[in-house]
Amino acid sequence: NIIAHIERFFAGDPPLFRGKRVLVTAGPTRERLDPVRYFSNYSSGKMGYAIAEAAARFGASVTLVSGPTALSSPDGVETVAVESAEEMYEAVLSRFAETDIVIKAAAVADYRPKYVAASKIKKQPGGYVVEMERTVDILKALGERKTGQILVGFAAETDNLEQYALKKLEEKRLDMVVANNVTEEGAGFAGDTNIITIFRRDGVVRPLPLMTKREAAEEILKEIHAYIEAIR
Amino acid sequence: NIIAHIERFFAGDPPLFRGKRVLVTAGPTRERLDPVRYFSNYSSGKMGYAIAEAAARFGASVTLVSGPTALSSPDGVETVAVESAEEMYEAVLSRFAETDIVIKAAAVADYRPKYVAASKIKKQPGGYVVEMERTVDILKALGERKTGQILVGFAAETDNLEQYALKKLEEKRLDMVVANNVTEEGAGFAGDTNIITIFRRDGVVRPLPLMTKREAAEEILKEIHAYIEAIR
Repeated sequence: NIIAHIERFFAGDPPLFRGKRVLVTAGPTRERLDPVRYFSNYSSGKMGYAIAEAAARFGASVTLVSGPTALSSPDGVETVAVESAEEMYEAVLSRFAETDIVIKAAAVADYRPKYVAASKIKKQPGGYVVEMERTVDILKALGERKTGQILVGFAAETDNLEQYALKKLEEKRLDMVVANNVTEEGAGFAGDTNIITIFRRDGVVRPLPLMTKREAAEEILKEIHAYIEAIR
Repeated sequence: NIIAHIERFFAGDPPLFRGKRVLVTAGPTRERLDPVRYFSNYSSGKMGYAIAEAAARFGASVTLVSGPTALSSPDGVETVAVESAEEMYEAVLSRFAETDIVIKAAAVADYRPKYVAASKIKKQPGGYVVEMERTVDILKALGERKTGQILVGFAAETDNLEQYALKKLEEKRLDMVVANNVTEEGAGFAGDTNIITIFRRDGVVRPLPLMTKREAAEEILKEIHAYIEAIR
């Protein structure tokens, strides 16, 4: 149809990502405390879903590993539903060898309760202390195992954005970090727009203005393509 | 139209709850740890929304105070969106004086982080301790303030269901407790069915078989009506 035709036109002909296998992670994770309670975060999954959709429009074969969101699985994308950081780790690692580009847009929980109760914890008078432990660092594990894959991470911060983004790029051997300040008006988790800055391993920094998450997704993919061209 | 006609027929003519002001709470609450992280539970809100819808079909004037859910606001119901236990408390208390029946189907968090960080808490190597404190007990506050309102609470448990339900009925001065074992197949948070047992203050206990949440909602309302008739 005509819209698909126009989209193909803007995606390039041949499409920029034809033949590429792209894995996108999206959404929050939930880390259980007991059978009814969990820790999570405000990620809506919209940015990751927009990237998965754009990558499919750009001709890639796309797998979307998604934590719990209210979004529908995009057409033409293989979606794998997970809940915890541990489940996301397993879903991503098991697919990593056959992937060309990993875009980790998920807001994976950094911490989880150290002990998960088998029964609902009953209310008691007074306070309560939850011991938290670090979850597995998926990006770092991928950085250590990479054999030519392009790794793209996200940094959603409330302050010192550039510093954290560059640190993440370095420490996790990433090719690119997409950074945004989640407290800025028009950026962040819940909305349909974002304000991102792209940091590339080769030193290129690209601050982008306020745009829809769909537009931001296309800019990120074009930047990945430009980076692949630049380093090869 | 015909369906509304049929529904009115089953709702009784005149409708069972005509002239009654019903307040229903639904969904989980979210308790912030920092600007991006929160503590919550698996409540989908489906049971509370089904009760609000059924109460409107039964002729009541209905207010639904809802935590974050993926559900749409029901037709003919005034919906008030809240996030935390504290916000739900304020929304319910401010409407309590002009309410006849309160049905508290929400799974309000019992605990919240004692300290809420103004910036995103950065990852550190090693563990981390979250100090939790009790949230305000909405049902208990209502029990202490009631001047003739009918109070209905829920008990979602994983064990010792009857014991907890009767304790709740007594301690919070409730008129009725709707109890379910959330680990039972067909009961609990996510699904469209439920298996409930209704405990009334006047000693009546009514265990119900597996049914849809819509049917369960109607049974709960009919039981409230029967209870009001029995005690007056």
